Amino acid sequence: MTKTNPGNYFEDFRIGQEIRHATPRTVTEGDVAAYIALYGSRFALSCADSFAQSLGLPQAPIDDLLVFHIVFGKTVPDISLNAIANLGYANCIFGAAVYPGDTLSASSTVIGLRENSNKQSGVVYVRSVGRNQVGEVVLDYVRWVMVRKRDQAAPAPQGDAAKPPAVVPADQLQVPVDLNLSRYDYMLAGSRHRWGDYEVGERIDHADGMTIEEAEHALATRLYQNTARVHFNQHTESQGRFGKRLIYGGHIISLARALSFNGLANGLKIAAINGGSHVAPTFAGDTIYAWSEVLDRQPLKGREDVGALRLRTIAAKDHACADFPSKGADGKPHPAVVLDLDYWVLMPR
Amino acid sequence: MTKTNPGNYFEDFRIGQEIRHATPRTVTEGDVAAYIALYGSRFALSCADSFAQSLGLPQAPIDDLLVFHIVFGKTVPDISLNAIANLGYANCIFGAAVYPGDTLSASSTVIGLRENSNKQSGVVYVRSVGRNQVGEVVLDYVRWVMVRKRDQAAPAPQGDAAKPPAVVPADQLQVPVDLNLSRYDYMLAGSRHRWGDYEVGERIDHADGMTIEEAEHALATRLYQNTARVHFNQHTESQGRFGKRLIYGGHIISLARALSFNGLANGLKIAAINGGSHVAPTFAGDTIYAWSEVLDRQPLKGREDVGALRLRTIAAKDHACADFPSKGADGKPHPAVVLDLDYWVLMPR
Amino acid sequence: MTKTNPGNYFEDFRIGQEIRHATPRTVTEGDVAAYIALYGSRFALSCADSFAQSLGLPQAPIDDLLVFHIVFGKTVPDISLNAIANLGYANCIFGAAVYPGDTLSASSTVIGLRENSNKQSGVVYVRSVGRNQVGEVVLDYVRWVMVRKRDQAAPAPQGDAAKPPAVVPADQLQVPVDLNLSRYDYMLAGSRHRWGDYEVGERIDHADGMTIEEAEHALATRLYQNTARVHFNQHTESQGRFGKRLIYGGHIISLARALSFNGLANGLKIAAINGGSHVAPTFAGDTIYAWSEVLDRQPLKGREDVGALRLRTIAAKDHACADFPSKGADGKPHPAVVLDLDYWVLMPR
Repeated sequence: MTKTNPGNYFEDFRIGQEIRHATPRTVTEGDVAAYIALYGSRFALSCADSFAQSLGLPQAPIDDLLVFHIVFGKTVPDISLNAIANLGYANCIFGAAVYPGDTLSASSTVIGLRENSNKQSGVVYVRSVGRNQVGEVVLDYVRWVMVRKRDQAAPAPQGDAAKPPAVVPADQLQVPVDLNLSRYDYMLAGSRHRWGDYEVGERIDHADGMTIEEAEHALATRLYQNTARVHFNQHTESQGRFGKRLIYGGHIISLARALSFNGLANGLKIAAINGGSHVAPTFAGDTIYAWSEVLDRQPLKGREDVGALRLRTIAAKDHACADFPSKGADGKPHPAVVLDLDYWVLMPR
Repeated sequence: MTKTNPGNYFEDFRIGQEIRHATPRTVTEGDVAAYIALYGSRFALSCADSFAQSLGLPQAPIDDLLVFHIVFGKTVPDISLNAIANLGYANCIFGAAVYPGDTLSASSTVIGLRENSNKQSGVVYVRSVGRNQVGEVVLDYVRWVMVRKRDQAAPAPQGDAAKPPAVVPADQLQVPVDLNLSRYDYMLAGSRHRWGDYEVGERIDHADGMTIEEAEHALATRLYQNTARVHFNQHTESQGRFGKRLIYGGHIISLARALSFNGLANGLKIAAINGGSHVAPTFAGDTIYAWSEVLDRQPLKGREDVGALRLRTIAAKDHACADFPSKGADGKPHPAVVLDLDYWVLMPR
Repeated sequence: MTKTNPGNYFEDFRIGQEIRHATPRTVTEGDVAAYIALYGSRFALSCADSFAQSLGLPQAPIDDLLVFHIVFGKTVPDISLNAIANLGYANCIFGAAVYPGDTLSASSTVIGLRENSNKQSGVVYVRSVGRNQVGEVVLDYVRWVMVRKRDQAAPAPQGDAAKPPAVVPADQLQVPVDLNLSRYDYMLAGSRHRWGDYEVGERIDHADGMTIEEAEHALATRLYQNTARVHFNQHTESQGRFGKRLIYGGHIISLARALSFNGLANGLKIAAINGGSHVAPTFAGDTIYAWSEVLDRQPLKGREDVGALRLRTIAAKDHACADFPSKGADGKPHPAVVLDLDYWVLMPR
């Protein structure tokens, strides 16, 4: 019996199964610097202790997407090592703020299993939760992924997952304890535009483009300890479908978020991700642009200082977004679009 | 009205205008590690807490050029997003030492405006100041940049800037409070050569060469949150003047400084930059070499332990510097030269 | 006289000579993050403070190989700048655990000198020791390297080195003070396989492959402040033996170790390196795979919680290791093999 982890196959999962994922990870100022070097993110809240302290926090919290990537990465060896396709994620709610020195761990519960009719694979639904070292939830989301069967003849357990909500209700968004935006400095934050200045339907071209190098996405994906093989192994991928390494979809999310600073500088924190489509694969050499549409604008109960903005951010490759590429009249995505992300940000009022 | 920042055009500036730049930035041990990975710098003062403590400092201060790049980066979105050319900088004086955990912010004052005769652009002179979280000045410099006009017909304010000194006078150089070099360990620092061992006119070949990869300069420039587009966007630059991304000039300064360790290991701190010419652009794939000439040697008032050395460091690409490439008989720069930097370093006596 | 360091030539060394190497280096959480980004290492002990604390340590110690690379890097400018070949290393024992904030320095003693018969070079044997800021030994090893003579006619001192042991005896392995594995969490660590589950002769394919980019190995090697020219200078290497930059052998060791997590996740700490052969050079673009053989299994005196496993880990390039490539019937290494490393790890019982 080999001691190498072969990953779980579809028939290995059971409804209600709980998986504690390996390698807890202390997130540090080192990760913060690496993250800035990778994406150039400029949101003041996660860049400056003094700025965070002026808003009542003990120091600058870790960027939400860095938290997401680290928690997500831990689930890969158990959930998606034998994935054929990452189908989706939803109801992704950020909880307690994460600070340098916190240690994150992750666990998943299998909430749904549906075998494909060809008996060669099935869809696994999991609810994954990231926690800090004192057990507070920092992230909670649902994900579904198509996983190979090891043995086509093996009996495959079934069970329907409750459908996750298409949109996280605004009253479930969490504002970090102690955050108080009454002393928010718009000049230092980089924009004078407040929550109330954004109109539903408004479109914002984030203007800038960022080209991705092979070393960059690989450094990022290793930083997250994400072990999905397609991102790292040119020897096998050269024989694969695309002939080259695929970029981790989360890398594009982080790039699009960093680009979105130009137009959404006061969108200081991601509160939830409602869902996302990785419409097309990306590769080293691609230049990523982004634009956003305001989908909704909601006040938050009991808060006069902060509101929530629901955004759709679209990333496109090798195509500047001044024309807001989205879908054609035929409902098909514009050929340049690679990411279509639906999420909530917090913004000062 | 778009919420995207279009940057300032020449006619948007006013003499005396003060601009507080966005995104204060906490500099951490993470940035220190990233900086070492990018350049391989070996100056003991900024590499080792124990070394710094033996000289009276609380811990290893942040490398001066990392401070420079971070402060400079903040000014880009407001000052030079619509630049045609970065023309120069001068009178750049480093102030209070910066330590991990300090938060840097930057502001600029417009001190000169001169429209070009073609009415399509003008030269903006700014004095930019970087401060730490308690308001101490860490960096103060003058910069001038040629900026496009949005509208050729727009009236353009004028105003002459006082000419910055060609050389920062030695009596304006600042030695970090508490720095005491009486216990300086030359062996640990990597060289036995002291301030008094360097002769004016002496030339030093730094011998080593370093090849730059696309991912490296992009990681660096994002680490500094410098948003100048030419460094990042291959999609547009492939159509541009050079067909490829330009490397941030400061990346070459940092590489040349790191290479200069071999011959100037005791030049423990940059006290001031008198000026610099980015003689030719650099691109991924270029190999950078450097050599230095001693321009001046000055004692510092009231200090027996430390003196100042004025250096001219020249970086060349794809050309080893044993022949000290500089200018030809015709006064034109040697074709391999890419940087000609004039600065003061502190060195133990 | 130039102030540039030309490095030592064979005739510059003397038996018994002690060399204190330059640039002490504070190792930080920044280095930890950079190391994870470079290799994706997932061993829980060095990734999570909470995990380390559950085992009695104050926080997560620095990865042993990061310590090795930093200490090794310091020796390069004095020992091997004029090396023709790095011939070997042995008896490499890890001592006191290193924590973020510790400052490492290195010194070497010349223990053997043997001139080659052609009088153009000779073999230098050194014992190098890395220490933390309070003088505790963190690493101690013997290394031998073939170094050029500056002057063929120069008299060359001789002296035989005591032959280092082929294998570090298990009773010389050091377990970090306070480490107590009684509360070891196998699930969080990523494997249920304990020390007693591994059989001598057992082979483990680590399955995954990792492609190396030029920027990655250069960032790593600069992070270690290793100045060996062949890793950095494409301008000269394009004219050299391979036409391209050579990857630092230690980069391959770290990659192989990170890959070995898959099958050896509980090999929580490297206690000693018995020796290693860098069988073939590696270059950017190579994909590294690895497999391991269990060579020995030894209890540790007075410890019921932890034992030692002697491993041979072989790295191969562009060749998956399911067939355990090693040596042919003729005793020659398999053409894909690039590294053959013999070392001890600690593992919970």
